[in-house]
Amino acid sequence: MAESYRLAMENPELGSAVGFSGYRMSRFLHICESADDLVMQSQMQRELGRRTGTCFQRCVGQDASNAMWSTTYDIDQKHGTKYHARFVEFMKMAQSKNLVLGGAMTDVKGTSVFVVFQMTDPDMFVRVAERKPDGGVVLRGCKAHQTGNLNSHWMIIMPGGKMEKADKDYAIACAVPVDAPGLTYIYGRQSCDLRAMEPGDIDQGNAKFGGQETLTCFEDVYVPPEYVFMDGEVDFTQTLVERFTAYHRRSYVCKAGLGDVMLGAAATVAEYNGVAKASHIKDVAKDKLVEIAYLNENIAGTAMASSYGGQATPSGNFLPDVMMANICPLTKWRNVLFVQQLGKHNVTKLPYEIARLAQDLAGGIIVTLPADKEFRNEVAAPLLEKYLKGKQGVTVENRRRILRLIENMTMGRNAVGYLSESLHGAGSPQAQRVLIQRLFDLEMKKRLAKNLAGIVE
Amino acid sequence: MAESYRLAMENPELGSAVGFSGYRMSRFLHICESADDLVMQSQMQRELGRRTGTCFQRCVGQDASNAMWSTTYDIDQKHGTKYHARFVEFMKMAQSKNLVLGGAMTDVKGTSVFVVFQMTDPDMFVRVAERKPDGGVVLRGCKAHQTGNLNSHWMIIMPGGKMEKADKDYAIACAVPVDAPGLTYIYGRQSCDLRAMEPGDIDQGNAKFGGQETLTCFEDVYVPPEYVFMDGEVDFTQTLVERFTAYHRRSYVCKAGLGDVMLGAAATVAEYNGVAKASHIKDVAKDKLVEIAYLNENIAGTAMASSYGGQATPSGNFLPDVMMANICPLTKWRNVLFVQQLGKHNVTKLPYEIARLAQDLAGGIIVTLPADKEFRNEVAAPLLEKYLKGKQGVTVENRRRILRLIENMTMGRNAVGYLSESLHGAGSPQAQRVLIQRLFDLEMKKRLAKNLAGIVE
Amino acid sequence: MAESYRLAMENPELGSAVGFSGYRMSRFLHICESADDLVMQSQMQRELGRRTGTCFQRCVGQDASNAMWSTTYDIDQKHGTKYHARFVEFMKMAQSKNLVLGGAMTDVKGTSVFVVFQMTDPDMFVRVAERKPDGGVVLRGCKAHQTGNLNSHWMIIMPGGKMEKADKDYAIACAVPVDAPGLTYIYGRQSCDLRAMEPGDIDQGNAKFGGQETLTCFEDVYVPPEYVFMDGEVDFTQTLVERFTAYHRRSYVCKAGLGDVMLGAAATVAEYNGVAKASHIKDVAKDKLVEIAYLNENIAGTAMASSYGGQATPSGNFLPDVMMANICPLTKWRNVLFVQQLGKHNVTKLPYEIARLAQDLAGGIIVTLPADKEFRNEVAAPLLEKYLKGKQGVTVENRRRILRLIENMTMGRNAVGYLSESLHGAGSPQAQRVLIQRLFDLEMKKRLAKNLAGIVE
Amino acid sequence: MAESYRLAMENPELGSAVGFSGYRMSRFLHICESADDLVMQSQMQRELGRRTGTCFQRCVGQDASNAMWSTTYDIDQKHGTKYHARFVEFMKMAQSKNLVLGGAMTDVKGTSVFVVFQMTDPDMFVRVAERKPDGGVVLRGCKAHQTGNLNSHWMIIMPGGKMEKADKDYAIACAVPVDAPGLTYIYGRQSCDLRAMEPGDIDQGNAKFGGQETLTCFEDVYVPPEYVFMDGEVDFTQTLVERFTAYHRRSYVCKAGLGDVMLGAAATVAEYNGVAKASHIKDVAKDKLVEIAYLNENIAGTAMASSYGGQATPSGNFLPDVMMANICPLTKWRNVLFVQQLGKHNVTKLPYEIARLAQDLAGGIIVTLPADKEFRNEVAAPLLEKYLKGKQGVTVENRRRILRLIENMTMGRNAVGYLSESLHGAGSPQAQRVLIQRLFDLEMKKRLAKNLAGIVE
Repeated sequence: MAESYRLAMENPELGSAVGFSGYRMSRFLHICESADDLVMQSQMQRELGRRTGTCFQRCVGQDASNAMWSTTYDIDQKHGTKYHARFVEFMKMAQSKNLVLGGAMTDVKGTSVFVVFQMTDPDMFVRVAERKPDGGVVLRGCKAHQTGNLNSHWMIIMPGGKMEKADKDYAIACAVPVDAPGLTYIYGRQSCDLRAMEPGDIDQGNAKFGGQETLTCFEDVYVPPEYVFMDGEVDFTQTLVERFTAYHRRSYVCKAGLGDVMLGAAATVAEYNGVAKASHIKDVAKDKLVEIAYLNENIAGTAMASSYGGQATPSGNFLPDVMMANICPLTKWRNVLFVQQLGKHNVTKLPYEIARLAQDLAGGIIVTLPADKEFRNEVAAPLLEKYLKGKQGVTVENRRRILRLIENMTMGRNAVGYLSESLHGAGSPQAQRVLIQRLFDLEMKKRLAKNLAGIVE
Repeated sequence: MAESYRLAMENPELGSAVGFSGYRMSRFLHICESADDLVMQSQMQRELGRRTGTCFQRCVGQDASNAMWSTTYDIDQKHGTKYHARFVEFMKMAQSKNLVLGGAMTDVKGTSVFVVFQMTDPDMFVRVAERKPDGGVVLRGCKAHQTGNLNSHWMIIMPGGKMEKADKDYAIACAVPVDAPGLTYIYGRQSCDLRAMEPGDIDQGNAKFGGQETLTCFEDVYVPPEYVFMDGEVDFTQTLVERFTAYHRRSYVCKAGLGDVMLGAAATVAEYNGVAKASHIKDVAKDKLVEIAYLNENIAGTAMASSYGGQATPSGNFLPDVMMANICPLTKWRNVLFVQQLGKHNVTKLPYEIARLAQDLAGGIIVTLPADKEFRNEVAAPLLEKYLKGKQGVTVENRRRILRLIENMTMGRNAVGYLSESLHGAGSPQAQRVLIQRLFDLEMKKRLAKNLAGIVE
Repeated sequence: MAESYRLAMENPELGSAVGFSGYRMSRFLHICESADDLVMQSQMQRELGRRTGTCFQRCVGQDASNAMWSTTYDIDQKHGTKYHARFVEFMKMAQSKNLVLGGAMTDVKGTSVFVVFQMTDPDMFVRVAERKPDGGVVLRGCKAHQTGNLNSHWMIIMPGGKMEKADKDYAIACAVPVDAPGLTYIYGRQSCDLRAMEPGDIDQGNAKFGGQETLTCFEDVYVPPEYVFMDGEVDFTQTLVERFTAYHRRSYVCKAGLGDVMLGAAATVAEYNGVAKASHIKDVAKDKLVEIAYLNENIAGTAMASSYGGQATPSGNFLPDVMMANICPLTKWRNVLFVQQLGKHNVTKLPYEIARLAQDLAGGIIVTLPADKEFRNEVAAPLLEKYLKGKQGVTVENRRRILRLIENMTMGRNAVGYLSESLHGAGSPQAQRVLIQRLFDLEMKKRLAKNLAGIVE
Repeated sequence: MAESYRLAMENPELGSAVGFSGYRMSRFLHICESADDLVMQSQMQRELGRRTGTCFQRCVGQDASNAMWSTTYDIDQKHGTKYHARFVEFMKMAQSKNLVLGGAMTDVKGTSVFVVFQMTDPDMFVRVAERKPDGGVVLRGCKAHQTGNLNSHWMIIMPGGKMEKADKDYAIACAVPVDAPGLTYIYGRQSCDLRAMEPGDIDQGNAKFGGQETLTCFEDVYVPPEYVFMDGEVDFTQTLVERFTAYHRRSYVCKAGLGDVMLGAAATVAEYNGVAKASHIKDVAKDKLVEIAYLNENIAGTAMASSYGGQATPSGNFLPDVMMANICPLTKWRNVLFVQQLGKHNVTKLPYEIARLAQDLAGGIIVTLPADKEFRNEVAAPLLEKYLKGKQGVTVENRRRILRLIENMTMGRNAVGYLSESLHGAGSPQAQRVLIQRLFDLEMKKRLAKNLAGIVE
């Protein structure tokens, strides 16, 4: 989180922006006013991935803000409500104080990722449990897999799916401070989490940065009316989810930044292991680095394509789109979603292959390297210093450090962010495939084929 | 070729443009004046891929024109020559007449795709064999794998590689009409080419469109001075090749258009085969269609990303780039090339997998279907009509047509364009890997990893 | 076909066997009496793949004979019929004359590969249309994708699926001479088939060998009682299909022989192209050859594993099995089928990747090489001889020959056998996945996981 | 380790054998006397993988014993030494006491896995530092990545590579008790190792079994002459390494047992997550299980093929071979090694993809599940019980248990054994590719292709 502020200081053009409020604040708080803004977001996210090697916890709030902006506008247009003005006020306050915003969408649901709405317990989706005379609402329920709320100032709550069958108590969007009474956070445990409690910074792999997730429970959390941005407009739940998704799947471009770290780590470990000496081996090792770069840039490429193609919404902010509006206005929205799926779908696969290639270049020592403690043991230490030497001029400590970083990102704490979160965050692979199926306009493509085949039906 | 004119009539915004000359002409003749122009090129190329299901032969000329534009400008700046003005005149003439331009780069080289310059026979690269008193030049040599020249009005000749060791007679760029004396074209043969000579249009698969390639031999072809755009400036050969490559690898976005046809053909054949009836099968077949779409859009995504990121050159026209210039001005040119490699590299693999999936959905009948002639034979015809019936309501003829289209694109004439040309055109896979290796800035990425690992060297 | 006789002469141990009849005849006629016999079959099939580079058309008959042997025995045991003795007589006759036997299983079905039985037209599956007073039967219907019958002496007809809903007229197995009255063969057309009618042997790629398939129509074909081996025993249709499949999916080991040819062709073309000169390129090209070998031997490995694990059936002949009977007798039959699926499933994917790698090494010339006719044209020939020279010491003709062989196996006539038949023969990929799902004993595997996780339910 | 004894008690036929010594002991101590013995080894290894879900640490000793058996015999034949009789005595003792034998081959080498011999420090390979008057030797050096020695009774030491350039002090093979004076073991740390020290058995994932590796340092370890089995016979170092490799790469069939656990865990978690309810989802999830099974059985298939093809060595014991000796006696040894590479090479890739698929089915909860401790916290526990409920009838505890098992095998302690050890154990991927290149008989395969292409050189 700190690194997002640091970037804003060091590289203000990339890490900050002047918002609609007139304040210069973190770019994560910016409501995108152009396709360039979307591109800059993607650039910033990749850069923060490079600097932290983990999930930096700020994209949910960014994407929630942008999705709420246009959705509140559209709700007001249809229903004559006043949500957009409220949301504008809320964002003005956040921008003026340069706050961190989190976002919460995924409900626990009662079973799991794939399963449709089934109301065995009314609290399985966050809902309005009570309405107060002042127009405020009281929330009950629980949001799962929550990234970033714990270290935010406020969080934006959104419905966790298209609310077709549910009654309108589930169609609730609002903002709450993260220390509001009634909130309980239960920390998710991560691989190798206990290493952070050991002395020394080597075995953590990345002692500077790590991500986290919580289960966020709402036990009668009161939200005053000025922070309620949707309440019962069931017909806009799908819109909100899809727009959030359009921004958020694209946000996985950060993993290309983590992939840059993996590429650097793989190159470093190959060098430390002395691979460069044998020319035949060198070519093969280099080709593996090329493969890592190729896979990694595929992640970046599709994400960038969708940022570049941003389009203005009626509310004025920009949504990522990839087709020129004047060419195919009717398919514009379809294409917004389509490319998000592709980019995100790449992220569910390619980092796993990159991780395998990095472990390949690291050698078996990646999993047999003794603990840092042994290097402080009077019997073991001299033996280790003697026998774990790599290439001349490389200290055993530095060799250990790069190995531990690769372990960290492929099996340890940040493998959570680099691998499993890439797989499931912003929707598991099947979610993307279902959307691709909805969107791929098979009838148009069948017409193309029938035309060339000379088929008349 | 005709379809490129037809598109310009039917959809002028996509298929045509108003050039610097003031004429409205085919967009293929347009010198890109903005990133939008690059994007529109990509859109047009995908659309023509959709309409023809094959190589439509016009991108070499388009990419050569744009690369020559900025390179002639830069040569003049350094060497005080007058090439750019000549080239402007040439393009003005071409735009005013709405001509078709081809382009020729790849020399026969003496061995093959991978091999560096070796001068066993001086004609293995096209060269200036003689200089005339009027300043004109006489060319000798041979360009291989030439797409489109035969059905163009003029072709632009470029050197086939970085001319380091060669003397300056090989650093020649110029334009010649395709019927200039001394030119011989030898047609390349394609799989199933003889079917085009049979009666009936079914077994061709795609009776409307097909690509072609020639070996183009220059036996003392005279070029007057006003069509010579580089002559001896060895130091710009690499620049010209790289710029052409930057445009041209991106041009393989057309294969996403062919992929749209494949997706439509696969969906149609699955439907005709009656797959939709069994719900279990239907899900699996649909998932294969999703996979085709996913693979195909990866091709489009990286190509689009590089078009969107176009940057102005000193000469004023635009080159495809993917990074914001104000963020990383120093790495701009590097990134131009980088993304081209990725997009093109995807094209060398993914169409083969798409072809396999389409054959999978087609069923074994894709290779056991009897010839059209049998359907006109009095003994065979009634048996075939009885036994090859698919889903109710689908004629046997239409089933045959869609099967022959898939055969055409996976094993027949247009497999040349969809598969092998995707593999080798604009550089074989290894060419992209070599460039990725040159460009991936390993030192920067090693610094990222070392920073996170806490390595001090 | 001839090559199968030639092999028997040149290498009798591999290509022939002494049958139960006492005659030495082609090993394709052998009823397997040991696991070694199964292994020898696999060895022979790979060797014939190496010698022909195509489908050699004899495995269907071989696998049908072996499946009929044990199935007729089991039917007799249960139903008190006399089929086995009849079948023994039939095989004795075939062995004594060293005949070629074909086999026919796949019905046209009315729709396609994936679809379950639906009787819109009673002839969509081959059936007994009439019963004669002498006990003979009259067949009507049509078998699709028939390999080898046309160049056999007799064919063995089997039901094309589990006959659950069909009445017993569809549960028919018998043998007929291939020239029996009422039979009509309609030839399937193949990619580039017309090249075989051109003068010269180069452009065919493989002028010596090619496969073929026919649609085989039965219009009232009479079968005398002594050649009927199943008639109405609906309860054994699944058994027969599964046993045939157990032998036949394993038969795709021949494709590892074709893969050996591909490996050799890829190595030769790389050499002819001069790749060996540049050491960096050489390493990369060699690694591609290693990848081809790795993929190809995966095909062989699983097929061999199932041959080695053959088990005796009650009738005395051997079925391919992979588990030791004394370890898990109860799961024996399951495992027979399981490994067939895996081997065959590899064949549906890996040859496509091998083909792509071979085209990669061949270079773009694989699809732009002019026709043989041009090399006899007085204008073109000298230009082609000059400009298509590869590595020193390699004639242009030999370079063309190896390129045409790769074209033949990846896009031409024998791509039918190497690619599409690998995909669909003996069951399309989905057929294997359905069987894997039926067979993978998920309950046992869930118990393993629950045991380790400490789960008590 | 205990489980290997338990299996021998519960299933003596599989887990034990009667050795040449006449004793019934663990099958791991058995000198293979037939191809069936090799097959039984493979079966036992897969079964122990199923029972433990990790590396069970006994294959190195088994494979070392079998490789030493024939190699000592062959050394004696050539050099007139007496090693074989000594080794027979040693094995008799081990069999009579049913001991556990470890084995040690990989030296630290000074740099890394890929690098050839370079003697910067004489101790980088284990060597004879001194020779005692009684014929005994004194060892110095260090073996890396040592599996199993720590929990063995004796270990068999072998040279870590072909000793071409080294002097004969490095060509040493012998046996030492694991508590011999001068030995120091330094434990390798594993992902999540500290969880084993927490109360409760859930978060360990697999609380029953785990693997381990050590760095094993030899500081003047004395070995009496009766335990020395090679001393200075440099010409047999490659033979010994290759034979050990032939057995040992095949031993990775155990990973198919771990894959069975993964399949069961993936199926269980899908069920617990409630996937089975939605029919569309169910088909897709089932197809992922099919994919896991398909990948996993590929590992088993090639390993089994090489066991089935075992051949007798001159010493009488059996080496795994896959080709019938009477068909191609000359290529026998080549094929031994070839198939080992393939099977092992599959293991370096496929488990990573299986792990990804299992994480896919597990859902995001795989990395956000709170620690066991939270379930004992009075605030958190009731919230967790309420909100983490999956499918009806499944306790939250059981859901946690299966999730932790998948975490354990894909990111935790046993990911070491299932993934990274599969990648690097018995040689990293490149080691297999180098051998494939040495062995694939390209000349023969080029002849096949040239024959079919009609090439005469």
